Amino acid sequence: MSEADFGPRPGEEIVDLPAAFDAGLYFVGRVRTPWTERAQCPRNSAQSDAVCTLEVDPRFAPALRSLAGTTHLIVLYWMDRAPRNLVAQQPRHAPEARGTFALRSPARPNPIAVSVVELLGIEGETLRVRGLDCLDGTPLLDIKPYFASTDARPQARVGWREAEADGEVSGREGRRAAP
Amino acid sequence: MSEADFGPRPGEEIVDLPAAFDAGLYFVGRVRTPWTERAQCPRNSAQSDAVCTLEVDPRFAPALRSLAGTTHLIVLYWMDRAPRNLVAQQPRHAPEARGTFALRSPARPNPIAVSVVELLGIEGETLRVRGLDCLDGTPLLDIKPYFASTDARPQARVGWREAEADGEVSGREGRRAAP
Repeated sequence: MSEADFGPRPGEEIVDLPAAFDAGLYFVGRVRTPWTERAQCPRNSAQSDAVCTLEVDPRFAPALRSLAGTTHLIVLYWMDRAPRNLVAQQPRHAPEARGTFALRSPARPNPIAVSVVELLGIEGETLRVRGLDCLDGTPLLDIKPYFASTDARPQARVGWREAEADGEVSGREGRRAAP
Repeated sequence: MSEADFGPRPGEEIVDLPAAFDAGLYFVGRVRTPWTERAQCPRNSAQSDAVCTLEVDPRFAPALRSLAGTTHLIVLYWMDRAPRNLVAQQPRHAPEARGTFALRSPARPNPIAVSVVELLGIEGETLRVRGLDCLDGTPLLDIKPYFASTDARPQARVGWREAEADGEVSGREGRRAAP
């Protein structure tokens, strides 16, 4: 896989990135998944029940203390193969290019992915989780407990998704109305 | 405010950080809030109804396209005043020190905060949002649409929080049972 996989499509927009970074990240471990090529990755975490593991660097292992009894985690990881200069992107099958901040695409100025995972087990420096969709070996940035009171918004809606869903519903209704 | 505010307390644990960073971040804007000192900040976002703004750098403004009709966002920002070497922390009033990855404390190896906010309005490069609790001027890292299907887990539980809540409930019941 190369950056060519992410090459700009018609309607997409790129910018010149700043000359220097403003802050630095430490990789605190690795994400282990069954997927070694991008084409194998599920389209999103809801499309896979695969059990993956978070392997935390021994240096940071003491930070895992007190996780027992916690059911869900927010995992941050670094999409290290994604280009960072795309500000508008053309998703396949979408009617027009969309702003990067309106998408969950890995291509973004700071390619930090956020996933909510189910915590299945803890063995030493390794967490077994469900809910990831990234490549094997992806660098791990952070693990946080998921607080339903501040993190769960079941009623949230995404504008462009609703527009697409409306189209689908009309389509299905049209077919249903037909003989 | 200085790092001394975050100085280790009894039971806390620090580690030597790696000699070099593994990746770099761009600040893509600033968070504007009513709070200019740490003591003023709400304890968490649920404790404030304050309207805050996300000011996106003009360079990245095209990335805001297509957000209309989206009700909630995930905002990532950089807690630039927090120490990064604390792997176990002693929250005030907690019975014992807890692992950093079991806490939402800003002090962590990569001090990236994740907040779910309500999107109230978009004016040019500025988003009005509700649900932040950070200092005015905090560097902005990323904005993502919140997808209820993958991000909302209303049933999620946090082990140490439940233990505390049990204690509180017993306490209250005890007092209620007393004359």
